[in-house]
Amino acid sequence: MRPETSSAWRPAQPGDRMQDVDTPALILDLAKFEQNLARLMRAVQPYGVRVRPHAKSHKCIEIARRQMQAGAAGICVQKLSEAAVFLEGGITDVLITNEVVGARKLRRLAETALAHPGARLGVCADDIGVVRQLAEVCTQTGARVDVYVELDVGQNRCGLVGNKDVVDLARAVVASPRLNFMGLHAYAGSAQHRRGVPERRAAVEAASQRAHDARAALRAADLPCERITGGGTGTFLYEAASAVFNEVQPGSYVLMDSDYARNAVDPEAPRFEHALALLTTVMSLRSADGNERATLDAGLKSFSTDSGPALPTFSGWRPYAVSDEHTVLHKTGDGPAIRLGDKALLVPGHCDPTVALHDWIVVVRNGIVEDVWPVDARGALF
Amino acid sequence: MRPETSSAWRPAQPGDRMQDVDTPALILDLAKFEQNLARLMRAVQPYGVRVRPHAKSHKCIEIARRQMQAGAAGICVQKLSEAAVFLEGGITDVLITNEVVGARKLRRLAETALAHPGARLGVCADDIGVVRQLAEVCTQTGARVDVYVELDVGQNRCGLVGNKDVVDLARAVVASPRLNFMGLHAYAGSAQHRRGVPERRAAVEAASQRAHDARAALRAADLPCERITGGGTGTFLYEAASAVFNEVQPGSYVLMDSDYARNAVDPEAPRFEHALALLTTVMSLRSADGNERATLDAGLKSFSTDSGPALPTFSGWRPYAVSDEHTVLHKTGDGPAIRLGDKALLVPGHCDPTVALHDWIVVVRNGIVEDVWPVDARGALF
Repeated sequence: MRPETSSAWRPAQPGDRMQDVDTPALILDLAKFEQNLARLMRAVQPYGVRVRPHAKSHKCIEIARRQMQAGAAGICVQKLSEAAVFLEGGITDVLITNEVVGARKLRRLAETALAHPGARLGVCADDIGVVRQLAEVCTQTGARVDVYVELDVGQNRCGLVGNKDVVDLARAVVASPRLNFMGLHAYAGSAQHRRGVPERRAAVEAASQRAHDARAALRAADLPCERITGGGTGTFLYEAASAVFNEVQPGSYVLMDSDYARNAVDPEAPRFEHALALLTTVMSLRSADGNERATLDAGLKSFSTDSGPALPTFSGWRPYAVSDEHTVLHKTGDGPAIRLGDKALLVPGHCDPTVALHDWIVVVRNGIVEDVWPVDARGALF
Repeated sequence: MRPETSSAWRPAQPGDRMQDVDTPALILDLAKFEQNLARLMRAVQPYGVRVRPHAKSHKCIEIARRQMQAGAAGICVQKLSEAAVFLEGGITDVLITNEVVGARKLRRLAETALAHPGARLGVCADDIGVVRQLAEVCTQTGARVDVYVELDVGQNRCGLVGNKDVVDLARAVVASPRLNFMGLHAYAGSAQHRRGVPERRAAVEAASQRAHDARAALRAADLPCERITGGGTGTFLYEAASAVFNEVQPGSYVLMDSDYARNAVDPEAPRFEHALALLTTVMSLRSADGNERATLDAGLKSFSTDSGPALPTFSGWRPYAVSDEHTVLHKTGDGPAIRLGDKALLVPGHCDPTVALHDWIVVVRNGIVEDVWPVDARGALF
């Protein structure tokens, strides 16, 4: 059991003013969050596809519940231990968009499914040996699991390439009465952050063609293919419009980050707001030597730098150096005067691994804290 | 209160074989860890300086206890909430090597000190207004806190530059009967990762000269300066030998990472072993197209990439792409054959923010799990 010491340190209470929130703390702007929720559902509505938002972006049961209330058909997660958290949180349809490998994990997958008889739990597969192991453990335990064959549609990370392999794997799934073969997982991950609209469209066209061909091969082999699922915040509209995909999986749309904001805007796609920011405090200041420097109380342990540092929401100050618990801003142009103790909001470069660093999301409307939500699946790496 | 779901998911139990540990999991090689502990103490012994290891590297009470048993005089932390965790864990001398700013945090600092009357709690300062606020809250609450004036010795992040400012700030500390003015915090952070030995030595010589001059200014003003503390894993031997510093603060030495291993070796300095590694599982494999690819079940949420990706401990395979929960290795030369489900050990680029991503450290000796230690101060960002 972990001690409660760090978790007990809540950064805020409902009713606090935002400027009194302890820092560093994730701030969710509730109005923008609700806009993002609504805009996504409105954007895909004409295409009649299911929406299964990716909860790896937020790891928060309350956000998943609101996504379900907004019309989502279920959620995605990336890890089995994340699935357990959301199933325990009452989400009744969870897809692990990832392979689960190894005897210990496969047994745990079956046990997790068994523990939630009213819910659906799905998993991806790209290896026939693993599918046979999963079928065996499900037969032994009486568990029932949805299985999607993962297609590699350009990410070059997991998944199958050849249609014969797809058919063989689907057949192994169908052979087990404890496994439900659902269809294809075809996530074009590397397409999400291609900056230009034509490049993103072209990548999804190629992915759609691949999924279309794999489905044709399955049908030719008298196998079902009820669902083709994929798409992220950068491309979901193209999957939705493809007439091949019937489910989309955007995750970051609900929080947004600087990296997605660097994608060229498609005028046909909805605009998502930066609903998530990191509140920090100016903890050291120097201006005597002409170079104005403001040091914030948040660094590598409060935001992930894989897509660059978190960026100030105000102009004239830029990150100069980031260390474990500090970000040094330098004044580079016209911008606000900064005093010691001032609060500064930053937009993370990449929301998913940033949220994973925090225990809490402080939920704010009109500058007042409405609630503090736990990052329930924080640390759910397994 | 956070749900126990993710934390309850322990990756191993004592007696497990390392290859059966659930992944991704941090593995501490106990023999190497004990060597690192002993080598540090032996290396500084001739200089008679105190050792105050930096616990921000490991965030683990059990590791801090072992550092104390090995002869450390206390520990450093970077955050007030970390200090609370280690004080509650029984460590009786904790220095926050950082400024604490804002009325709410200063009150919490005083309350934390009050809650541990048998322990010493220290903090750094670089602003006279903050020192006056701290003095006031300590007077109100009856708390007693050690205060160190932070010198900027080249990091350009926090701290004072001019000796007059140092003297003025020390005087403000001394003026409060509730604050103990201890001396100077002079951490040459940017020196730690300069690759060449002469560059690291020169940076510490400059820092030592700065600290020496500041101490002379304090003495000239009839102010005490009992302690000068600083130094990290890259330089602590030079601070120890400086005859200016009387306390050193290395942190990473006990775990080690790839980044520190890139420093040129000083033959006079002790060699520290990579005691910390990340155990992963090969979850997807492809070799049909000539390019062998092995995908591991750990990515940005299991190791920090600010100093590059985590690197395999075996040859012939290199990280090609890292995403939230995956690392794709490509075969680049002679190396072991890899099968699906194999375990792969990686050495993190930067141990501090990597440990902060995990709930547990699995402690192994001779390939068998001896214990599983919580990362107690994980999430202690405040």
